[in-house]
Amino acid sequence: MNKVTIVGSGNWGSVAAKLIASNTLKLSSFHDEVRMWVFEETLPTGEKLTEVINQTNENVKYLPGVKLGKNVVADPDLESAVKDANMLVFVTPHQFMEGICKRVAGKIRTDAEGISLVKGMEVKKEGPCMISTLISNQLGINCSVLMGANIANEIAMEKFSEATVGYSQNKEAAEKWVQLFNTPYFNVTSVQDVEGVEMCGTLKNIVAVAAGFVDGLEMGNNTKAAIMRIGLKEMIAFSRLLFPSVKDSTFFESCGVADLITTCMGGRNRKVAEAYAKNGGKRSFEELEAEILRGQKLQGVLTAKEVYEVLTARGWVELFPLFRAVYEISTGVQPPSAIVEFSNNKPSSHHRQSML
Amino acid sequence: MNKVTIVGSGNWGSVAAKLIASNTLKLSSFHDEVRMWVFEETLPTGEKLTEVINQTNENVKYLPGVKLGKNVVADPDLESAVKDANMLVFVTPHQFMEGICKRVAGKIRTDAEGISLVKGMEVKKEGPCMISTLISNQLGINCSVLMGANIANEIAMEKFSEATVGYSQNKEAAEKWVQLFNTPYFNVTSVQDVEGVEMCGTLKNIVAVAAGFVDGLEMGNNTKAAIMRIGLKEMIAFSRLLFPSVKDSTFFESCGVADLITTCMGGRNRKVAEAYAKNGGKRSFEELEAEILRGQKLQGVLTAKEVYEVLTARGWVELFPLFRAVYEISTGVQPPSAIVEFSNNKPSSHHRQSML
Repeated sequence: MNKVTIVGSGNWGSVAAKLIASNTLKLSSFHDEVRMWVFEETLPTGEKLTEVINQTNENVKYLPGVKLGKNVVADPDLESAVKDANMLVFVTPHQFMEGICKRVAGKIRTDAEGISLVKGMEVKKEGPCMISTLISNQLGINCSVLMGANIANEIAMEKFSEATVGYSQNKEAAEKWVQLFNTPYFNVTSVQDVEGVEMCGTLKNIVAVAAGFVDGLEMGNNTKAAIMRIGLKEMIAFSRLLFPSVKDSTFFESCGVADLITTCMGGRNRKVAEAYAKNGGKRSFEELEAEILRGQKLQGVLTAKEVYEVLTARGWVELFPLFRAVYEISTGVQPPSAIVEFSNNKPSSHHRQSML
Repeated sequence: MNKVTIVGSGNWGSVAAKLIASNTLKLSSFHDEVRMWVFEETLPTGEKLTEVINQTNENVKYLPGVKLGKNVVADPDLESAVKDANMLVFVTPHQFMEGICKRVAGKIRTDAEGISLVKGMEVKKEGPCMISTLISNQLGINCSVLMGANIANEIAMEKFSEATVGYSQNKEAAEKWVQLFNTPYFNVTSVQDVEGVEMCGTLKNIVAVAAGFVDGLEMGNNTKAAIMRIGLKEMIAFSRLLFPSVKDSTFFESCGVADLITTCMGGRNRKVAEAYAKNGGKRSFEELEAEILRGQKLQGVLTAKEVYEVLTARGWVELFPLFRAVYEISTGVQPPSAIVEFSNNKPSSHHRQSML
């Protein structure tokens, strides 16, 4: 009998709980109960968030109006939440993951399997530090990832959507994750390419910034589609340079082209970049981020910087004219219009093509 | 010295003339003059269209406000227009191509090369009849294709865009076409996959109809991205079943993912399908087409029907749940909401995945 715990209870974590809880009731190989670790908060009413979730089956703060299922149990104690589970779902903001791993290391079942829904990872000069690798290394467990075109509120409303599970070796574990997440309106498939799936989730945000520039410059659908396509090819090339095992076909999965489309159509990275271009680069990203996102954080500009550091350290800058342009525009070195001018740089463009 | 004639002078043909004419002036291996065959019309002013084009360097009917270049010569006589050229650019509505081929067969240079910009082709039970093949067979010349995310008016305004040349054998000829079309704002690359490039141009319209249904049902970006992705995978699978030589990588080119994005964001197929879904399938496509497009023709529904005939004839229906759903919805067999329900059909979905 499999026992599931969700580490995290934000917007996406709550939707994951709803999906999973509907399946554990149906599948005989899973315990009905789904435990969800909730970072305890006191609501304006004076009640504790965990108590309200357990009384109403609703995360009134991060997913109001949606029932999670009676078999979801909110638990404010991290160690108690994870200790009995053999299936651990990680879905917290990126920056909390290292601390969480330290707190639960040695306090989980030795036969546990993990899956990370955390989008974004750190790209450092010495190479990228992937969240799934962090979990694997710190907890000594196998860790898959789940990514895709997943706007949480749309899935909560049971609108049709898809996701991709990426795994490294253990196909059986991956199939168990697929079983746990898949519903008639949430179509999950698995691919043996954990790095490819996780890279998609990170790099798409750089392309979304580029797409936002195009929107801000009002250059039309042709140009935007071209920039998205070039971005996709650079995502593939960069992923493959870092991890030669990454498969082209992964980018045809939900985590690839579908998530890229969603992120470049809506999404906060696109939105702030659009405002930046509309202002001709005269107002900083920090200022626009604070004004437009009101506390939510922008990933794309940071990722562009991190990726650019890898490119310079490894001598790859000329191979990635779009990633470079996003970095140079967002740091004020180039004007927003440079987003469509990199192609003039013929030698590198040809070099890039022959490489791809 | 290469000599270029453009067969066709509509919106896209006129933009092609502008692109080409700017390059023949610069490239020493090309005659400056670009001849353009114009189907003669008398304008409301009483003037002939060819005369006005030659006086003003502007196609006042199909691309008003844009100078084509002084070296573009409009010619109302098809035979005279083609007889001296060794590079023939075909860009007319699909249905005129067979008649044009018959008229010029035997009246062109034996060393001529062709390129087709005609989107759409006939898919029949006995297999697809591609426009490039029609040209090749009827004229006895080699014929490449040029496709991509090409909204003509955006390119006319010199907004950054891309295109893909697909060729079968002759790489040198393909490189000459790239030289002829490529400008700083119109980035052309070539791939050795004429079938793949041409299939992209046709099949994307089926996916655009599916995307329009999702828009009409107001299902959000997640769902739309998922449907576009599934459509792209079916495009690849269908192309490869018909032409095993088709390459996956072609779908990462402008003719593939970029054109799909443009077509599913704007585009007439999407628009009419959206109206169809909004009306719950109660008003026919014919009626909506007449009302919304005012004489322009819808490709997607017709292509869906043609492809469905191939699928039934070859026993492939179960492998293409999305193409099937578009056909069944557009013929009233299923309601528009079926566009997101095909995935319940698990066996075929799994079969499809293992095949892709």
